[in-house]
Amino acid sequence: MHTLTESDLWRKLCAEALGTAFLLIGVVGSGIMAETLSNGSVALALLANAIATGCILYVIITVLGPISGAHFNPAVTLAFYVRKEISRTVALGFALMQIVGAIVGVWLTHLMFELPVFQLAGTALTGVSQWVSEGVATFGLLFVIFGGLRSKPEAVPTLVALYITGAYWFTSSTSFANPAVTIARGLSDTFAGIAPSGVPAFILVQLVTVVISIPLLAKLFSK
Amino acid sequence: MHTLTESDLWRKLCAEALGTAFLLIGVVGSGIMAETLSNGSVALALLANAIATGCILYVIITVLGPISGAHFNPAVTLAFYVRKEISRTVALGFALMQIVGAIVGVWLTHLMFELPVFQLAGTALTGVSQWVSEGVATFGLLFVIFGGLRSKPEAVPTLVALYITGAYWFTSSTSFANPAVTIARGLSDTFAGIAPSGVPAFILVQLVTVVISIPLLAKLFSK
Amino acid sequence: MHTLTESDLWRKLCAEALGTAFLLIGVVGSGIMAETLSNGSVALALLANAIATGCILYVIITVLGPISGAHFNPAVTLAFYVRKEISRTVALGFALMQIVGAIVGVWLTHLMFELPVFQLAGTALTGVSQWVSEGVATFGLLFVIFGGLRSKPEAVPTLVALYITGAYWFTSSTSFANPAVTIARGLSDTFAGIAPSGVPAFILVQLVTVVISIPLLAKLFSK
Amino acid sequence: MHTLTESDLWRKLCAEALGTAFLLIGVVGSGIMAETLSNGSVALALLANAIATGCILYVIITVLGPISGAHFNPAVTLAFYVRKEISRTVALGFALMQIVGAIVGVWLTHLMFELPVFQLAGTALTGVSQWVSEGVATFGLLFVIFGGLRSKPEAVPTLVALYITGAYWFTSSTSFANPAVTIARGLSDTFAGIAPSGVPAFILVQLVTVVISIPLLAKLFSK
Repeated sequence: MHTLTESDLWRKLCAEALGTAFLLIGVVGSGIMAETLSNGSVALALLANAIATGCILYVIITVLGPISGAHFNPAVTLAFYVRKEISRTVALGFALMQIVGAIVGVWLTHLMFELPVFQLAGTALTGVSQWVSEGVATFGLLFVIFGGLRSKPEAVPTLVALYITGAYWFTSSTSFANPAVTIARGLSDTFAGIAPSGVPAFILVQLVTVVISIPLLAKLFSK
Repeated sequence: MHTLTESDLWRKLCAEALGTAFLLIGVVGSGIMAETLSNGSVALALLANAIATGCILYVIITVLGPISGAHFNPAVTLAFYVRKEISRTVALGFALMQIVGAIVGVWLTHLMFELPVFQLAGTALTGVSQWVSEGVATFGLLFVIFGGLRSKPEAVPTLVALYITGAYWFTSSTSFANPAVTIARGLSDTFAGIAPSGVPAFILVQLVTVVISIPLLAKLFSK
Repeated sequence: MHTLTESDLWRKLCAEALGTAFLLIGVVGSGIMAETLSNGSVALALLANAIATGCILYVIITVLGPISGAHFNPAVTLAFYVRKEISRTVALGFALMQIVGAIVGVWLTHLMFELPVFQLAGTALTGVSQWVSEGVATFGLLFVIFGGLRSKPEAVPTLVALYITGAYWFTSSTSFANPAVTIARGLSDTFAGIAPSGVPAFILVQLVTVVISIPLLAKLFSK
Repeated sequence: MHTLTESDLWRKLCAEALGTAFLLIGVVGSGIMAETLSNGSVALALLANAIATGCILYVIITVLGPISGAHFNPAVTLAFYVRKEISRTVALGFALMQIVGAIVGVWLTHLMFELPVFQLAGTALTGVSQWVSEGVATFGLLFVIFGGLRSKPEAVPTLVALYITGAYWFTSSTSFANPAVTIARGLSDTFAGIAPSGVPAFILVQLVTVVISIPLLAKLFSK
């Protein structure tokens, strides 16, 4: 752990907020556009949504990776903290900025699509199948990040982008796997929304999965 | 800033015109094909349009990057000028050739699809939401280019291609973010068209965003 | 052939099981999601299925390649054994773990989508055209792996991912080309299912194709 | 120009035949599958067809490039001959094997899809717009190959794959740009077919475009 100068830390925090804002613009904006244009073909809407999300993920991780590490996800930040690769202060700062960036991203998206800025989502996502999905999705994301960092670090942006694009399809929750994204999507009553009542359980599953997965993955990728 | 020999400059200008022509063939041609074949599914048409645009962007930036820098966009050329990386003469020449190339590209596309060569677009794109979209789109494009040049220069073609493919979906304007493209799309009454009355405001937003963004991005990517 | 320590071997076996489980989650899960959302448009469902499969293939091969070689496929393991690059014990262990991982992956997917865990597929896939398809698909997969290892080893994850994404479309069987995948898909009465009665012939074609192809490919890629 | 041993030449010729066969399996097979499944949505069929074609192009160029140069296209072989990079004998051998491989690929595809092996296409593709399209498509392909070889040789497989995926959409002919492909597609009365009466004009445009383009591109990419 290096000592950060204050200006370095600020740049990292800005990068986390900006990147997460772009992520939410990508996720929520493409969902709105896709739903509007798809005449009720949900598969087509999800395909556009998944592709646009993969595109923006590759972009923000590649561009901001060298600045902040490109977490954009409190679950990922927790994982780095559990692995003792970042301090508690930085971890808390990151998580806060990710949540702020995510919410601002959603609001800006509403503005771009001429929708009311402040909303609460109506789509209920809850139940055991959804939670198993979030557990699998989060484990997979950590597998991809920490396995990728060990096997081919320069491929991590591609790995995360393709993993999430795929995981939109192979989990029933469409793979949030990110508490900041989950909170912010609670504030958008659009294609990518999740009713706020379902948010706490999703976040709980995501964070518990981090704590369980990190030692297992450390063993698998020990050498 | 190197001194350019006259033949070097000509090659650069040709590359900018040729690349921008290909860009417009990609954008407008795939829009025509997609709309013709999609039986009214606008989502499907936009998906094909976004993918084809991403493909041609990767191609022209990779192939012509080493020759002219692969701007293909007066807003990007303005950004390099504001950053004092190119001279005023080169900047003006680039912008002119980009606009000429873009228009020729649109006309050639009309020829390929047996349409009247000279057209004016009818689709009105205007209003605050559209302009916010163009502001976000242009900021994002500069973020991707100048952040990418700092973080991973060899990934810039991929970054721009994926960013625009995504941004077709996550902005309500489908992300023109390029004055030459905006002008040329004013001359095509097809899927990718924009009514000429909306063109000046789009260009104004794009150029103002450049002037505002460059110092901010310079700070973020300073080290 | 190196002597493996016992713990090394265990890590390899775990990697093969885990990777194959993820592969089946990707194949079967995206099939279920796609079929559910596509209102009977099988082309759209197959497109989502093919893209999600390509995504997860790139991910698991990149991440686990340095650990186990990333076979995830008894036909590929057989090919390495025929080429005398792995011992019989390792080959048998790999094949067993791939089959176990594949089945667990399918069951976990059913859990994520609130379906009965234990199923048998109903879709009959049989007949000469199907078998020719599996022969071509398996030959192509070996061509891609062993040709890729010779021509550009770092591209193998991309090669396999793109090959299978394409082969979903250009073979009438949608290219199983993998005995573990074939067995596990026999246990899922969903979009990606294959009736158990058709499984043995598929596996036979896949394994025979390996034995025939390896010497031919060795000649083509000899230098 | 190196002197080839006879066995080297044979390997090159086999590689050209095999690669072109795979190319046609990809093009024609995915067209058949896509048309069968798409319930009349031609846009969806073309999207699947374009993606599958891009996938197989990346694969065959990456895998066979180091062996034969991966032309798979008599127009490309002619271009290398005009540039004096291969001898007339090799050029003729390549073109012959490409045509043979292409035809065998189409016939094998018919077998995989339970269709009559020997067919003649019925879809008429002719007229000035089609020929302009083939001219643009062929010029673009040479631009991509020879520009790519100069700017970033390791990206050529990606460049060609993405270029063709895009060009399916932005030319009215869907970009054959390849005499061997044109001939072979004349022999398949399926989605990718072209009535034999239109074949000679397509090939003429493709070859004339090569002869005109090579000196122009040599100038553009001279340094």
